[in-house]
Amino acid sequence: MSQIPTETDVHKMLDTLSNWGRWGADDQLGTLNFITPAARRRAAGLVREGVSVSCSRPISTDITADTSFQPMRFMVDSGEGRDTEPPERTRQRRGAAEFIGMVFHGYTITHVDTPAHYFWNGRIYNGRSCNLITSREGAQVEAVDLLRDGVVSRGVLLDVAAVRGRWLEAGEGVMPEDLEAAEKAQGVRVEPGDILLVRTGYYGRRRAEGPRNPGRDGSPALHVASLPWLRERSVAMLGTDTHNDVSPLPYPNIGNALHVVGLVGMGLWLIDNGNLEELAEACARYRRWEFMLTVAPLVLERVTGSPVNPIALF
Amino acid sequence: MSQIPTETDVHKMLDTLSNWGRWGADDQLGTLNFITPAARRRAAGLVREGVSVSCSRPISTDITADTSFQPMRFMVDSGEGRDTEPPERTRQRRGAAEFIGMVFHGYTITHVDTPAHYFWNGRIYNGRSCNLITSREGAQVEAVDLLRDGVVSRGVLLDVAAVRGRWLEAGEGVMPEDLEAAEKAQGVRVEPGDILLVRTGYYGRRRAEGPRNPGRDGSPALHVASLPWLRERSVAMLGTDTHNDVSPLPYPNIGNALHVVGLVGMGLWLIDNGNLEELAEACARYRRWEFMLTVAPLVLERVTGSPVNPIALF
Amino acid sequence: MSQIPTETDVHKMLDTLSNWGRWGADDQLGTLNFITPAARRRAAGLVREGVSVSCSRPISTDITADTSFQPMRFMVDSGEGRDTEPPERTRQRRGAAEFIGMVFHGYTITHVDTPAHYFWNGRIYNGRSCNLITSREGAQVEAVDLLRDGVVSRGVLLDVAAVRGRWLEAGEGVMPEDLEAAEKAQGVRVEPGDILLVRTGYYGRRRAEGPRNPGRDGSPALHVASLPWLRERSVAMLGTDTHNDVSPLPYPNIGNALHVVGLVGMGLWLIDNGNLEELAEACARYRRWEFMLTVAPLVLERVTGSPVNPIALF
Amino acid sequence: MSQIPTETDVHKMLDTLSNWGRWGADDQLGTLNFITPAARRRAAGLVREGVSVSCSRPISTDITADTSFQPMRFMVDSGEGRDTEPPERTRQRRGAAEFIGMVFHGYTITHVDTPAHYFWNGRIYNGRSCNLITSREGAQVEAVDLLRDGVVSRGVLLDVAAVRGRWLEAGEGVMPEDLEAAEKAQGVRVEPGDILLVRTGYYGRRRAEGPRNPGRDGSPALHVASLPWLRERSVAMLGTDTHNDVSPLPYPNIGNALHVVGLVGMGLWLIDNGNLEELAEACARYRRWEFMLTVAPLVLERVTGSPVNPIALF
Repeated sequence: MSQIPTETDVHKMLDTLSNWGRWGADDQLGTLNFITPAARRRAAGLVREGVSVSCSRPISTDITADTSFQPMRFMVDSGEGRDTEPPERTRQRRGAAEFIGMVFHGYTITHVDTPAHYFWNGRIYNGRSCNLITSREGAQVEAVDLLRDGVVSRGVLLDVAAVRGRWLEAGEGVMPEDLEAAEKAQGVRVEPGDILLVRTGYYGRRRAEGPRNPGRDGSPALHVASLPWLRERSVAMLGTDTHNDVSPLPYPNIGNALHVVGLVGMGLWLIDNGNLEELAEACARYRRWEFMLTVAPLVLERVTGSPVNPIALF
Repeated sequence: MSQIPTETDVHKMLDTLSNWGRWGADDQLGTLNFITPAARRRAAGLVREGVSVSCSRPISTDITADTSFQPMRFMVDSGEGRDTEPPERTRQRRGAAEFIGMVFHGYTITHVDTPAHYFWNGRIYNGRSCNLITSREGAQVEAVDLLRDGVVSRGVLLDVAAVRGRWLEAGEGVMPEDLEAAEKAQGVRVEPGDILLVRTGYYGRRRAEGPRNPGRDGSPALHVASLPWLRERSVAMLGTDTHNDVSPLPYPNIGNALHVVGLVGMGLWLIDNGNLEELAEACARYRRWEFMLTVAPLVLERVTGSPVNPIALF
Repeated sequence: MSQIPTETDVHKMLDTLSNWGRWGADDQLGTLNFITPAARRRAAGLVREGVSVSCSRPISTDITADTSFQPMRFMVDSGEGRDTEPPERTRQRRGAAEFIGMVFHGYTITHVDTPAHYFWNGRIYNGRSCNLITSREGAQVEAVDLLRDGVVSRGVLLDVAAVRGRWLEAGEGVMPEDLEAAEKAQGVRVEPGDILLVRTGYYGRRRAEGPRNPGRDGSPALHVASLPWLRERSVAMLGTDTHNDVSPLPYPNIGNALHVVGLVGMGLWLIDNGNLEELAEACARYRRWEFMLTVAPLVLERVTGSPVNPIALF
Repeated sequence: MSQIPTETDVHKMLDTLSNWGRWGADDQLGTLNFITPAARRRAAGLVREGVSVSCSRPISTDITADTSFQPMRFMVDSGEGRDTEPPERTRQRRGAAEFIGMVFHGYTITHVDTPAHYFWNGRIYNGRSCNLITSREGAQVEAVDLLRDGVVSRGVLLDVAAVRGRWLEAGEGVMPEDLEAAEKAQGVRVEPGDILLVRTGYYGRRRAEGPRNPGRDGSPALHVASLPWLRERSVAMLGTDTHNDVSPLPYPNIGNALHVVGLVGMGLWLIDNGNLEELAEACARYRRWEFMLTVAPLVLERVTGSPVNPIALF
């Protein structure tokens, strides 16, 4: 079984797994460079049943245990109490509209992280200065509008919770052997340009048992120790049903280690807080853990991510 | 050439084009019922080049002439001025995060309208009371989270601006003969379950000449007179590069007539304020005005629409 | 001792204590009509020590047990990491600015309620229709900008917690005999045009023991049974260190009974969620439970209240 | 007549007018130190008519020429369309509540600036580092909650527009001789601890002619050349009916010079964007340009200012 890396090992990963310069000094796309037209064609070629499945949680305005910032929905106009049997002369059109607002980073909203979401020693992916992200100007590089044309590729679900037959616990990390066990059990192999989705069951548990606070109570995720494996397989994007970092981890000086090594070192784009429950059911139903996956972030200028609703198509 | 309907004609359309009850008393999906697994498979089968193209405008925080409500991007944390060459002992991770907020309905943001966005005489699509949409509870029916699994189908661009060789003017409506002329010129035919995108060139003009205020200066769009044509062709969703209604129109008592008849009467879901410029270029380049189209609204509970980034795949 | 009114009694209060029409059919000011120039002069005449004391809680962005909607503070511009020893040539001014946002009604923010904050049977103070308060237009009557010139009068603190020698418990209401006992103990008498502040100690307890959720755990306040006393004394405005209603109360059909009878029936303006701790200390120090009080709501158009910082001047 | 200072002169003012260290190294109050209990008593002693007057503009949600960020008012609950003649059995209470949000710094909202609102060469008032104001933590020093007990002192209006008999133009600065001419014309003298309000007529003009954009079209204000005069008179706070800086001014490297020298150098708290129209009328009516003034900022933690409604009492 894989060894749990020490904190020093994790520091070293920032060098050994680095993609800085790999696609040129100007690159901002990082691992998304693995997605080619051929990968998109191949993804479309996987469609058989014509059934689409969301990988997103709902966005609710409730305050729950895992709310770090409460999403907002305010009606700018509503249909409240209007007359529904109006006399002829007062016939009219009306409408409803709303304001929505959110801090999508956090523990509850399914969202994409751009590499600029994290810095290490003042640097973001490809060696840029984090000073390029300011309160007034926002993210002047590595912003989510780079993905205006969306991310389309083969998605592969590795359903570690199903293979283990249980939900992973807080503090439990998905290791390379877990990934390979799932590949074997499911008869699938992660290949260059794939979007890898890893199911820990955490969100299923949340639905069954109610929300808990990952900041206080911890959560499972892919372990940072699996990043060499992801790099070897040339994974383009990683999504999980948690916020994508194991906690607690014994790295006092490099919290959220997967984010640090993945985003900063590798330029690995992430999908945090996914919902992989219906996806897992569909994969089991169709006996197929590969599918066409479309991730379409909002074209938000100068923002380090976006809420998204990734759509798997079988 | 088609006759411009009178206001009375438009009122009658609410009956003649009505889809109320067509898919049962409980239906909330309206014209999206035209999209079948076969339609999704067919869409995937169109993919050849493996090239994806956004149909979304960027979401900017600027106030412009067509801003009805200024989108917000505030940094909750930034990298401003952090030391980018820190001594060993102070090495640390940090990150950036932001609040985003918007009223997506309006004239600038690419977004989906659910049928509940409009009421006529106190009723929304399928005869429900508009009282179901309240300031406290939001849209208790016909909300955008119905589309959690996304909308995937064949997209067809009818590039009316290209056929006419000019941008359409404010007040100019796209009529059935324009649609058929484009079909003929482009060698494509709109079929059941298609997502129809109509390009007036308005957004290209905005990019060239700067924003103007549609509320004051008017805008082109598909004319309400074309809705019988859309119903006949069983179009599943309609998108345009304007807010999807011609203005001004000579209907003092039924403003935004296409929204009224389309959303309320037909349950026709809309994509407003699209960007069809790059899409038009891609269609011309590949000599193909049909493509796989994926629309993935955010899973916003009780909201009458969502900002979206529709992705065309060639 | 006063009898606890039955729910039927409370319903009757809406008639017996009604101020509808008392100051004319057009009146929107309700009990603030009791404040005359003479009352303001008298208030100013109370100033001796020249010491001012806030009656407001701080507005924090934390989520706590009593947060119903999390206040926001986002920096639009900050001084983060700027060079503080810049070379001559780069000398420059810069600045900080922020977005603030809040739902001030609730359990945590010190705020004024206008009469329009509550309706009973579709009516607001003075018999107006609650339909005048819409999601699009806001409060078209009885809005807080009526108070643009502020509320200045004599403030009287009745420190019921001090008289009882303990914090009041959830569900415990301040009755007329409590008010009179405090008057007697403090040597003060509530008179026409006064702003009455009632201290239950709830906020002192919150500071000592941490926040709790009044919606779930209840809270003390002035009892609706004291409203006849307030009307008899011609109190102009009522403030408390809770959200101004006892809970739980045995009135299943008229929740927040003091708000209903006070706001709707009497047109009694309220200050909810005050902080009366430092004020109580100042009163005890100066042996004087009367003072000049200035309440200066923001001039918010069409809003049913405002966050405020009421200033007592001794 | 006073000389217009050169840019070099303005730079020197940062030294010659500096209050850094004047009230100790820990001081955050700056010129508010001039307000003593005696000053508050004196202010209260000015009250004769018992008439209060707002110095605030209304806060509207409209986008106008001078909007830099659109204020928000959304109904969380409204009375829209509720039945106003309900049958007995459905009697119920309901209420209205709203979300409000704003960037109060800018050109439209009456607000207080704390000294931390501006930096010069990375420093804020009393020599602190501007790094203490971060996107995550906000203003860790010199925040507006320092004023939790309000600002109460004598207010003096110098109505320069009235003395000149016309509104001041963009680019026109109020010079020391203007202040003294107004003192003489009005028979009043600015003394230590006073809150000085200077009327240029700009807001009166805005009401008469509509909004204009100060960022593009300029505005009048007190000239930075008057700051020595303010320091000599020991003014505690300065308010104007513009954003408190003349523009344009010939200082390319020190924009908003009054803010820089006043806030950073002197620790002079400002009231920007006041409404002095009704105040000027009241002063003229009572033939008295001095009054009790109460400024009660919201107790916003870690914020560099607050919207306010300053109340003058005659």
